Amino acid sequence: MEVLTVDSLPLVQPGDNIAQMICENTVLEEGDIVVIASTIVAKAEGRIFTLENIVPGELALSLGKKGGRDPRLVQAVLDRSYECLVGYPIMLMQSKSAHVCINAGIDDSNVEDGKLVELPEDPDASACRIGEEIEKLSGKNVSVIITDTNGRAFRIGQTGVAIGVYHIKPLRDWKGTHDLFGMELKISEEAVVDEIAAAANLLMGEGDGGCPVVIVRGLNFHTDQKVTITDLYRPDDEDVVKKALRSFKQV
Amino acid sequence: MEVLTVDSLPLVQPGDNIAQMICENTVLEEGDIVVIASTIVAKAEGRIFTLENIVPGELALSLGKKGGRDPRLVQAVLDRSYECLVGYPIMLMQSKSAHVCINAGIDDSNVEDGKLVELPEDPDASACRIGEEIEKLSGKNVSVIITDTNGRAFRIGQTGVAIGVYHIKPLRDWKGTHDLFGMELKISEEAVVDEIAAAANLLMGEGDGGCPVVIVRGLNFHTDQKVTITDLYRPDDEDVVKKALRSFKQV
Repeated sequence: MEVLTVDSLPLVQPGDNIAQMICENTVLEEGDIVVIASTIVAKAEGRIFTLENIVPGELALSLGKKGGRDPRLVQAVLDRSYECLVGYPIMLMQSKSAHVCINAGIDDSNVEDGKLVELPEDPDASACRIGEEIEKLSGKNVSVIITDTNGRAFRIGQTGVAIGVYHIKPLRDWKGTHDLFGMELKISEEAVVDEIAAAANLLMGEGDGGCPVVIVRGLNFHTDQKVTITDLYRPDDEDVVKKALRSFKQV
Repeated sequence: MEVLTVDSLPLVQPGDNIAQMICENTVLEEGDIVVIASTIVAKAEGRIFTLENIVPGELALSLGKKGGRDPRLVQAVLDRSYECLVGYPIMLMQSKSAHVCINAGIDDSNVEDGKLVELPEDPDASACRIGEEIEKLSGKNVSVIITDTNGRAFRIGQTGVAIGVYHIKPLRDWKGTHDLFGMELKISEEAVVDEIAAAANLLMGEGDGGCPVVIVRGLNFHTDQKVTITDLYRPDDEDVVKKALRSFKQV
């Protein structure tokens, strides 16, 4: 497996065609997985906003006070969330696209001063749109993963995770296969798209040397089927951590 | 970055010298990161046991009943745990080495029938021992990561994670660096060893095609400093998920 950066990409502006930028700056091969940071997808889609004119409601004022944060930012986070799992000192939210993350994915780095970028509205749809365009331009069958960086329970530090997919199944199912001693594996689903996102994030970086597009080559994970990242999101009634956070009510 | 399997490794037996097996089956380069599945480290260290002669106590009997599991296995899990965060239907434990995982890391796949394998007692020490031996045999400076596969909150599927390290810092700190617009990054620690473990796990596999050693090449992450994976474990008093699980008391 090779993991390669796409260098020399220009700064992405609202309205830009990311698929075209990628194809102009790298030569893709059949089966490549194109991993794209959600920030540039969101920017191309114009999902940039400021805190001006946001009027915080009662909950935003309360959480802003408890967490020591701008209540307008808190309101912006709440507006983009389906559920608040932890309200302070961090804001751990289930976004409207069902992705659980800090601040509902609102980010203030790598955007012009005072501006904020929010997640793509429907990352699967974004991945599909970009993937189809890349395939048309390159003539190659590719997969696309749109990534975010997330913290985790129990462990410090962020890792890359997948939030939108095209032509790659989020999970590899080992159930029914056999181990080295011929015993059938009972439980084992592997979140391959998160592992690929993590691998890509090693080369993406967070700072000004950032490289928002990475190619993963040599894995045989391409599918022509329609896929969705929601296959990776644990159903509410099976998620003991979510249940515990709800009962803890730190909101 | 390249991710390469080490093929043709023989099945590991108690007492085997893993460093030597690796050096006999691949040519290492300066700065390589050698990623090793904890299962083979544990096997070489003889950390294999059976449920015979285990007498379950009161808690093990109770959790076994609630979770529909062999109470002797439950007792074995409890014996290897510092704290039980969820007791059923899954057993989410903080192991004695501070790693939070299902079943305190006891695994029944890829071991002879009826036998179970537990995690290395001190994965950092194992990584250090193997890393020093590899460096002696190969004449190259390398890093070592010992991995497990873990589930996650909110997201289905397992991913590779690091549980022991040698000559690689678990976290890359972006604090104080600047983003594309010159703004200082405030929070950003990246769990690079988990991302490398995830990348390696894509090639390791779970089944009988399993490949327990993977080389990651082309990252400039080598350090001569003494490192420990515990830098990656979130302190108890900062972990809102742990607090919530404790108050939820599903044990």
